[in-house]
Amino acid sequence: MQGYTPPTEDYRFLLGEVLGFDAVMDELHKSVDTDFAVTVLEEAGRMCAERLHPINRDGDEVGCQLVDGTVHTPPGLALAYRDFADAGWTALSADPAHGGQGLPYVLQLWLDEMISASNVSFGLFPGLTRSATEAIAHHASDDLKAIYLEPLVSGAWTGVMALTESGAGTDLSLLKTKAVETGGRSYAVTGTKIFISSGDHDFGGNIVHLVLARLPDAPPGVKGISLFLVPKFLPDAAGGFTVRNTLSVGALEKKMGIHAQPTCVINYDEATGWMVGEPNRGLAAMFTMMNAARLMVGIQGLGLAGAAYQQAAAYAQQRLQGRGAEGSSGPVAIIEHADVRRMLLGIRSFVEGGRALAGWTALQADRARSHADARVRAEADSHVALLTPVIKAAFTDLGFESAVQAQQVFGGHGYIREWGMEQYVRDARIAQIYEGTNGVQALDLVGRKLALAGGAVATGFFDLIATDLDQASETAQAVQIAEATREALELLRESTVTLHGASVDAIGAAGVEYLRLFALVCLGWMWARMAAAAAGGDTPLHRAKPIVANFFAQRVLPQARGLAASIAAGETSIMALDAAAF
Amino acid sequence: MQGYTPPTEDYRFLLGEVLGFDAVMDELHKSVDTDFAVTVLEEAGRMCAERLHPINRDGDEVGCQLVDGTVHTPPGLALAYRDFADAGWTALSADPAHGGQGLPYVLQLWLDEMISASNVSFGLFPGLTRSATEAIAHHASDDLKAIYLEPLVSGAWTGVMALTESGAGTDLSLLKTKAVETGGRSYAVTGTKIFISSGDHDFGGNIVHLVLARLPDAPPGVKGISLFLVPKFLPDAAGGFTVRNTLSVGALEKKMGIHAQPTCVINYDEATGWMVGEPNRGLAAMFTMMNAARLMVGIQGLGLAGAAYQQAAAYAQQRLQGRGAEGSSGPVAIIEHADVRRMLLGIRSFVEGGRALAGWTALQADRARSHADARVRAEADSHVALLTPVIKAAFTDLGFESAVQAQQVFGGHGYIREWGMEQYVRDARIAQIYEGTNGVQALDLVGRKLALAGGAVATGFFDLIATDLDQASETAQAVQIAEATREALELLRESTVTLHGASVDAIGAAGVEYLRLFALVCLGWMWARMAAAAAGGDTPLHRAKPIVANFFAQRVLPQARGLAASIAAGETSIMALDAAAF
Repeated sequence: MQGYTPPTEDYRFLLGEVLGFDAVMDELHKSVDTDFAVTVLEEAGRMCAERLHPINRDGDEVGCQLVDGTVHTPPGLALAYRDFADAGWTALSADPAHGGQGLPYVLQLWLDEMISASNVSFGLFPGLTRSATEAIAHHASDDLKAIYLEPLVSGAWTGVMALTESGAGTDLSLLKTKAVETGGRSYAVTGTKIFISSGDHDFGGNIVHLVLARLPDAPPGVKGISLFLVPKFLPDAAGGFTVRNTLSVGALEKKMGIHAQPTCVINYDEATGWMVGEPNRGLAAMFTMMNAARLMVGIQGLGLAGAAYQQAAAYAQQRLQGRGAEGSSGPVAIIEHADVRRMLLGIRSFVEGGRALAGWTALQADRARSHADARVRAEADSHVALLTPVIKAAFTDLGFESAVQAQQVFGGHGYIREWGMEQYVRDARIAQIYEGTNGVQALDLVGRKLALAGGAVATGFFDLIATDLDQASETAQAVQIAEATREALELLRESTVTLHGASVDAIGAAGVEYLRLFALVCLGWMWARMAAAAAGGDTPLHRAKPIVANFFAQRVLPQARGLAASIAAGETSIMALDAAAF
Repeated sequence: MQGYTPPTEDYRFLLGEVLGFDAVMDELHKSVDTDFAVTVLEEAGRMCAERLHPINRDGDEVGCQLVDGTVHTPPGLALAYRDFADAGWTALSADPAHGGQGLPYVLQLWLDEMISASNVSFGLFPGLTRSATEAIAHHASDDLKAIYLEPLVSGAWTGVMALTESGAGTDLSLLKTKAVETGGRSYAVTGTKIFISSGDHDFGGNIVHLVLARLPDAPPGVKGISLFLVPKFLPDAAGGFTVRNTLSVGALEKKMGIHAQPTCVINYDEATGWMVGEPNRGLAAMFTMMNAARLMVGIQGLGLAGAAYQQAAAYAQQRLQGRGAEGSSGPVAIIEHADVRRMLLGIRSFVEGGRALAGWTALQADRARSHADARVRAEADSHVALLTPVIKAAFTDLGFESAVQAQQVFGGHGYIREWGMEQYVRDARIAQIYEGTNGVQALDLVGRKLALAGGAVATGFFDLIATDLDQASETAQAVQIAEATREALELLRESTVTLHGASVDAIGAAGVEYLRLFALVCLGWMWARMAAAAAGGDTPLHRAKPIVANFFAQRVLPQARGLAASIAAGETSIMALDAAAF
């Protein structure tokens, strides 16, 4: 297996020539510029390539073990985590008030890309810790914040999101875990949670569980759910955290992939916890976690696709099979074969387009967080809200499809474990499911996000894209991609009108295809911007951009036609069959 | 996990009401009618459901072991194989001259569907044995036939295809295994083959390897490859097979899936063998094996998709999550949710359409084998040749996609091993790769099969579809699917013209998308015929057919538009990037 090469050259191109990073940073009064950002990303890339990537295959083969109630992670993982935290990577984008470095979120998301490319099982530890930190920072009492935020930000402790139960997955209204007040503002939490990522480990330090549970007098359904902070270790009289709380790992889930990640069944047996936020408002606090986590999960698909691409491209350049198109006696490197190129370009057009879209969205998140003008903050925030389900679902679907295509480039070797390609497929699969299945993301996009500001958020976003496409069209090498994207944007606008105020069934029937159409338009938009910007340089990177953009225009964007036709067809054929006749 | 329900009701509908089975059998003077055929399929289904399905999960978990040079298959597999053979299932469609039952090939392919649905690892043993048997029957000397055919047909012995080497996968011209004449018409075969399915086992009996190798004076490339029969056990003086040949299992491949299937590295160390067919004409004999095997592999995708559908539909009918569309307080079975129905109908529209297409193709194979009129035989044979790469590639791609969708219906539980859904995904993945990758199938379709009879085979086949669509349109409930298929057929005809005489690069660039378009048209054609035929009955099956047909028309066939646009775009954007720039 090849090593992993961090895409820092692409990051520099995006920050410096496409996304206007320096101008946004000026606007936010941040003393960060492209050069500094790239230096940080280079350093992050070294850590991923040299520390996380080399332990990825062994982590898959060895997996996690549950020994005497404690999770043992695979060789090297605990040490890598400590080094990762000590080097400050857990604190990268965190609030300086809690010990964070306060660097832009765009650096965080691209760090996440490189972590996911190197070792997606590892990435869930800091990723979920960050989500838990966000929820505590936004919703917990000052007392809890004072205790928990700093060690979570520093990486001394880790965080866990404990939501799912065996009977309550997508539908959290069905959850049964109970929390009973015990005096002193603490609660006794009792219940069993499943699918708990990073539920336990052997890194040392405390593990802070954020647990959804019901108060005894809670109303039924989602309006009766509260959020509780339940640490593995409780404070002792001396202020240390040495008292073992009554929570335990019931089992490790046996999974298709992410074997280095301990996905736990956790039993809470009158475990001591404290409420985060208001009683019965746990879902709101939970969604603070979920939105950050959803972007991170989308980036997992992107990272895995990029890593799989690198392996497949290198293999295709080395593997000799078959004759050249001009009939040379052969063998030639399979990169010469059009079908192999088609597969690789399909992956690459997603990876580079997705990387740009993630960067654009992250900069919106930075503006939403730090801009002086409330209207700018609100608009940027609405863009992040709109794009979160798109990035989560489309990036993980395309990430999985990319991993499968990269595996295909290897032929039979792709199916053999030692080559590592099938691990990418197995590891990528989970991201389509967790943090809200991709079907749920589509419902969120169509049912909720399109309705934001009465539809004005989506319309404004489409107008913004149209303006950018007009501008890109002024550069010759971006004309083709701009025009193809404009056509797809028109189909997206029509589909949006079709689904405006549609029934629940109509939204459910069309949601996934609508989300894919939305994503194709966004990727085309980024390719148009990149193709135009690339006219300003003459490196191999600059020369490749318009070629890949044209591939996307000609070979990927045509899917928009079929998607739009499916969306327009409505839900009749989907709802007609009796439930019992399936 | 639910049990497996053989689709015998669907088989009866197809034979009796769609495919005109009885008329074809009359034409071929076979004393087989629908009732008898369904009885055979029911019996086969019981064996699959009761013997093969129950050992499928354990086979995945336990896998095969290599102990002292011999493969140990997982618990129950050897016994199941012996019972399978003793009950006559290995002989079902084989030539009565060699102990076969001579039943129609359509029964064979549907038996293969049920085997693949129950235990795809198991199915490779009889499947590859059948391929080896075909090659021997068509190309071997009478002496070899007299020795080897009967025990292979009876299932006492099994067969192995040994083609691939580490440097020679898709490109067999690069293979290096040598065969040197040793007198007495035997050869000493030396080399290492990889990815050898069913390479060894503990079922008892001989294992007959068909090995591609080069004679010392062979010309380079594919014109210097010969085929050799190399048995694990050589005949002794008494006529028994007790003398161990010098071939050995070097290793078991560690794979993503089909863990119950021993995929071997095999070392031939001056192993004794006999030539099958003419010197340097091994590829022709090999293709006799490959074509039979390719249809079987396509059916693996179909079988796995059908099995995964059954599990997902049952789960969706039982799993309670979320509210109903009318806003009921819930929870409702998730089968009520439009997005879940969409996923299930996507799978089902492939499975039932694919089952019909497999049946139609198999009946063509029966006509090609047994019809009295040479012109009918030739036309039927050309249809089988045309459809073989389509069924191999499209059914395995759609089979894999179906397994992934069925897994998605389970949410997080789909990612957990004990539910069995992720095994379907892992097991389905290999079928896209082996027996010629799906990219190679596309090249075969566009580069070779479209050129048959100067293009007249394809044109004749399209005309046949058009006639059937016109006829289907006379039935009200088939009008929508017939019209949608007619539109897709027009796009397919245009794409065929585009690719006629195109360059190697243009064919390579468009092949995979062309093959998918071809498959969609074929599936739409079958749905039109089924929807029309279903007007003749009023069972739940008859009522469901036009509903699923309309789903296929509205939600799947629109993909044809994007595919046609991609094909029309040509190869420029694919070939433009420097090989080193990937």
